[in-house]
Amino acid sequence: MDEWEVIARARERFPVRGGSRVIGIGDDAAVVGERLLSTELFVEGVHFDRGWMNWDTIGRRCTEIVLSDIAAMGGTVDGLLVGFSGTLGSDEINLLLDGISSAEVPVLGGDTVGGGGECGVVLAMTVLGNAKRPVLRKGAQAGDVVYVSGALGGVLAGQKLLERGRRDSPLVERFLAPRARLDLASFWGRSASAMIDISDGLSSELWHIAGDSRVRIEIESVRIPIFEGVETVFENPIEAALSSGEELELLATAPVPLLEGKEIGCVKEGEGVFLDGTLLRRSGFTHRW
Amino acid sequence: MDEWEVIARARERFPVRGGSRVIGIGDDAAVVGERLLSTELFVEGVHFDRGWMNWDTIGRRCTEIVLSDIAAMGGTVDGLLVGFSGTLGSDEINLLLDGISSAEVPVLGGDTVGGGGECGVVLAMTVLGNAKRPVLRKGAQAGDVVYVSGALGGVLAGQKLLERGRRDSPLVERFLAPRARLDLASFWGRSASAMIDISDGLSSELWHIAGDSRVRIEIESVRIPIFEGVETVFENPIEAALSSGEELELLATAPVPLLEGKEIGCVKEGEGVFLDGTLLRRSGFTHRW
Repeated sequence: MDEWEVIARARERFPVRGGSRVIGIGDDAAVVGERLLSTELFVEGVHFDRGWMNWDTIGRRCTEIVLSDIAAMGGTVDGLLVGFSGTLGSDEINLLLDGISSAEVPVLGGDTVGGGGECGVVLAMTVLGNAKRPVLRKGAQAGDVVYVSGALGGVLAGQKLLERGRRDSPLVERFLAPRARLDLASFWGRSASAMIDISDGLSSELWHIAGDSRVRIEIESVRIPIFEGVETVFENPIEAALSSGEELELLATAPVPLLEGKEIGCVKEGEGVFLDGTLLRRSGFTHRW
Repeated sequence: MDEWEVIARARERFPVRGGSRVIGIGDDAAVVGERLLSTELFVEGVHFDRGWMNWDTIGRRCTEIVLSDIAAMGGTVDGLLVGFSGTLGSDEINLLLDGISSAEVPVLGGDTVGGGGECGVVLAMTVLGNAKRPVLRKGAQAGDVVYVSGALGGVLAGQKLLERGRRDSPLVERFLAPRARLDLASFWGRSASAMIDISDGLSSELWHIAGDSRVRIEIESVRIPIFEGVETVFENPIEAALSSGEELELLATAPVPLLEGKEIGCVKEGEGVFLDGTLLRRSGFTHRW
């Protein structure tokens, strides 16, 4: 059973009652009235590796990833709950708290569990936010334009360089320190018809919007903004930009131009995602059991 | 560094601004306006053991434990976010979802992470609730009476029996299926001056209220209600009732009688917790790094 099957099963099992102001499983954050809520788990050996990153980098990176769920809904952040389990020394806990606090978001509470044997650290981050008008994945309309908020592919390229032992590159910095686009989120939220953050990869997110909105999305590869230097790491930078995850840039559709938005394509009636006229495969990372 | 030091450090590091309607680290749930929010991590091998319990029991038990944080504030529950990581088969995931859904609370969202090697399952539960007037730990006043919502010690006695291989006892059932006292929470919340749920043990919770409220609490051992059968497992049932955790009963102080409340003592000026006139030691479980 893979991640999508688990989500589908959970959706089926937990139909959310309570009218249109409560939106459950399946968007970046849950919506309860004007409140937004999202939780993410980060598992050592799956999402991060203490050989690659210091604990402050891990803390900062995980924090930005969960904050990005609120950005994806066009929201602003009220605060975080932080839980962690596993074996961590006192210095490591301090560094982790440093990293989390660098996001300058109030930490409202949390839970800590020591021990757990030889097992790695699990970090559970929950973010509370709010939006007067949360932007879902399902609002894209034929005629809208598709925008991304920044250059892509740098995160994947940075990871590749780090795997090769390189540290002295802006690409590595891009991998270690992606930033949630909360600077743009509420601006984009006013005009966007559908929005998502790029956490699994551009191609996967395009499929989410197209599927949930029941529209066809057409993208032009020449318009996809590529992070500087990706071409030095990958022969096919477009492919890298399509599959690079945890970019935390916003992807949105809108009937009007979005502040600092880079236009990459358009929304039409129909279904599917097409790149230069060819059906685009879903890529990106799927957790599998 | 133990759990309390981590919490103290986090409190210091993340002072919550924003006035009296935002209450951060240190109560059962964080308070943001009228919203309540709490997160708990459950780690295989620390909080549960798949040899002892089926996955539906684990799901149900963990759900009740996190719901109890909202009960402790006198709130009602809006919904849950559920995250889990680790190696689980498809049948096990189904059972876990069964257990969670038995609480009949909307699941608003979550996160799932497969793999993580040989490591156990980590379950991260976050609950969103609300209360017009959240009851904190710090409001107890000299002259208040101390109440508990039910008989204690059964959870610890049940765990003991289960360790000895016994299954056919109401005590074991009590250990496997404690219930959050959401049935009483909003009634108690109207009149209680301070409230907490019994998750670490009565004695530990009494110290929390006495410390945060800067009062002295005096308890009479003959008044502590003991779960039926505890005396067949422990020579000293009072000791068991004082240290038994995850009871999920409410402990509150109030100037007026509380519905179904069992009076166990009184609040005076001063400090500390006294049992039959003797200083009570803090017991209960503390996670340690």
